[in-house]
Amino acid sequence: MISVEEAVARIVSALTPLESERVLIESAAGRVLAADTHAKADQPPFAQSMMDGYAVRSADSGTRRVIGSAPAGHPFAGTLGPGEALRLFTGSVVPDGADAVLAQEDAQRDGERVDFTETPFAGKFIRPRGLDFQAGVLLVPQGRRLTPRDLALLAAGDLAEVPVRRRPVIAYAATGDELSRPGQPRKPGGIVASSVYGLDAMITGWGGVPRDLGILPDEPEAIAALAKVECDLLITLGGASVGEHDLIQAALGPHGFSLDFWKIAMRPGKPLIFGHLGATPFLGLPGNPVSSMVCALLFLRPAIFAMLGVTAQTPFRKARLIGALKANDSRQDHLRAACEWREGDLWARPFRAQDSSMQKLFAEADALIVRKPHAPPAEDGSVVEILPLD
Amino acid sequence: MISVEEAVARIVSALTPLESERVLIESAAGRVLAADTHAKADQPPFAQSMMDGYAVRSADSGTRRVIGSAPAGHPFAGTLGPGEALRLFTGSVVPDGADAVLAQEDAQRDGERVDFTETPFAGKFIRPRGLDFQAGVLLVPQGRRLTPRDLALLAAGDLAEVPVRRRPVIAYAATGDELSRPGQPRKPGGIVASSVYGLDAMITGWGGVPRDLGILPDEPEAIAALAKVECDLLITLGGASVGEHDLIQAALGPHGFSLDFWKIAMRPGKPLIFGHLGATPFLGLPGNPVSSMVCALLFLRPAIFAMLGVTAQTPFRKARLIGALKANDSRQDHLRAACEWREGDLWARPFRAQDSSMQKLFAEADALIVRKPHAPPAEDGSVVEILPLD
Repeated sequence: MISVEEAVARIVSALTPLESERVLIESAAGRVLAADTHAKADQPPFAQSMMDGYAVRSADSGTRRVIGSAPAGHPFAGTLGPGEALRLFTGSVVPDGADAVLAQEDAQRDGERVDFTETPFAGKFIRPRGLDFQAGVLLVPQGRRLTPRDLALLAAGDLAEVPVRRRPVIAYAATGDELSRPGQPRKPGGIVASSVYGLDAMITGWGGVPRDLGILPDEPEAIAALAKVECDLLITLGGASVGEHDLIQAALGPHGFSLDFWKIAMRPGKPLIFGHLGATPFLGLPGNPVSSMVCALLFLRPAIFAMLGVTAQTPFRKARLIGALKANDSRQDHLRAACEWREGDLWARPFRAQDSSMQKLFAEADALIVRKPHAPPAEDGSVVEILPLD
Repeated sequence: MISVEEAVARIVSALTPLESERVLIESAAGRVLAADTHAKADQPPFAQSMMDGYAVRSADSGTRRVIGSAPAGHPFAGTLGPGEALRLFTGSVVPDGADAVLAQEDAQRDGERVDFTETPFAGKFIRPRGLDFQAGVLLVPQGRRLTPRDLALLAAGDLAEVPVRRRPVIAYAATGDELSRPGQPRKPGGIVASSVYGLDAMITGWGGVPRDLGILPDEPEAIAALAKVECDLLITLGGASVGEHDLIQAALGPHGFSLDFWKIAMRPGKPLIFGHLGATPFLGLPGNPVSSMVCALLFLRPAIFAMLGVTAQTPFRKARLIGALKANDSRQDHLRAACEWREGDLWARPFRAQDSSMQKLFAEADALIVRKPHAPPAEDGSVVEILPLD
């Protein structure tokens, strides 16, 4: 048995970022940027009025003569001369010759003449060209999953498309003679395959492309067919316990299966296989639904992020413990817990029932409290590590 | 001018949850459940072995005779008699007559005979039928956005499909003679329409269906065409400042536009229109990109959630302030800030530059610090309200 940390490290080190592809920014939400991306233009692209008002020369005083109007998108072609003012609006180009804007609420207009109750200073109510950013500046760094705000920023930088990592295709199969689909007739002694629906949505949420290979019986020929699947990572659910592990090994060994490790010192989810099937990375998750989803959080998410080149950013947080916990044994524990905020502090309360069969409690949990192997007892109010869910 | 709270209340009260539709659970991630959903079957559906091992009778002792093997999905048809044991695996049906399971690591097998180093008690290593949940129990309540774990739970409850709210179609148009698309030639005195790309991704992320109506010039005929758009909510970006507001009123008035309110006591983003165009709710966002996206977070998200029937859950949090803040004026302020975790505590540091033109700083922010109107000065370390971003 190896530790959770070592398992993550071995999985991640076996994977490299996928090739990049160019996508339009309107399709880039949630994609991972494959290269540092720089602005192509200054923003704002010209000295811009911050107000509805008048462009003036700060050296002038007294009544000005209004020489025209320049709404946003309709710049004034000439130069503002001494004693002149130009009607502007928010976002208008400040004309050559002007160095200040006075607000319309401080103006008294009378035909072509305008007086002001405020005195201008150079730069007043003007956003200088490039105030937000200048052409060439780094807008969004490589490895970032693009947020809505990033997309708006990239657009403002005049980028119509960006390089992103291809999304990894994650193919998965549930294995087990006992499995059927929800709503379909049950097999004798059978249960519903449930974790695949959670896994599929998790893969999508982490930026992968899920591919459902269906439910496979516990037969070597069915499992051997996995060797023909083309994908970036191949997952089985329920092929990792003792007997199943033997079946996977026996079925896939002749098709180029090589084992990296099997069994992790953790709870829930001890039996987990990682290796390669030919050149394809292979992850054998436990069949127990809670265990498989906890293992997906701990091992599949970093695997997908490694293929996407996501800049490392730990999903783990700290929280204060509600209640007390006994010392832990030699297996890293992941306790389903409810979280609550008390002012600016996050608190986590472990559920009493932690049996790995309890899917309902898992769905109701806000986080997993992570207890390292041999962790000492933890008192009420002490700081613990958590993994927030969703 | 009305307060942010009143504006949210008036928008939300003008909207009702959309009709429900049934979707397969494999398509239900992120959808909002339209009815309380109950389990159709017990989970586990039968008394289940927790271990690879042997089913026994706890009243027995000594050597047992192995009468067969029942892997998961292959239940034993008969009843376990006195002195008998049945080979089981994790997930196997515990046969009639048996009331305990002993683990294989505690068993010494010799042909048809098996001895144990452990003594059984009734219920040992058995998950009773319905331990996780029983048929009829509430699995997921109405109004919840379905997580991957919810989908797995619903599948375990034998539900192949669920009722969810139809996703609201949110049509949006940017208005302004100065606007062009990124990568396209600029107009004289023009800028790039950028906030639409952020808005589109936000709408999708909140569960709506965005529909891009393009860029409209500042002409009454172009804006009047919006009256023919069929959608659940119509948005303009950049039609809310003084002159633009007049244009919107003039262009849409003859087509059944009715104003609910205009102008909110907030920063950034004061000019915001809410009303109806015929029967269609209408939201006029500011043209400034940061203002428009902040207003989308504050007003569009609750609007979409109201149409989806999302159970109220505040997105606001508390954090501790890094640095100090002066007393606020009469407009609610939304300061772009970076967040950091110190053990279990969340801290927020407002950026120095808060000009609403700074899109790059907005993209780099982790949260908005919310300063209520007339908020007193806040000291370093004091608790402030924040709105986390993304």
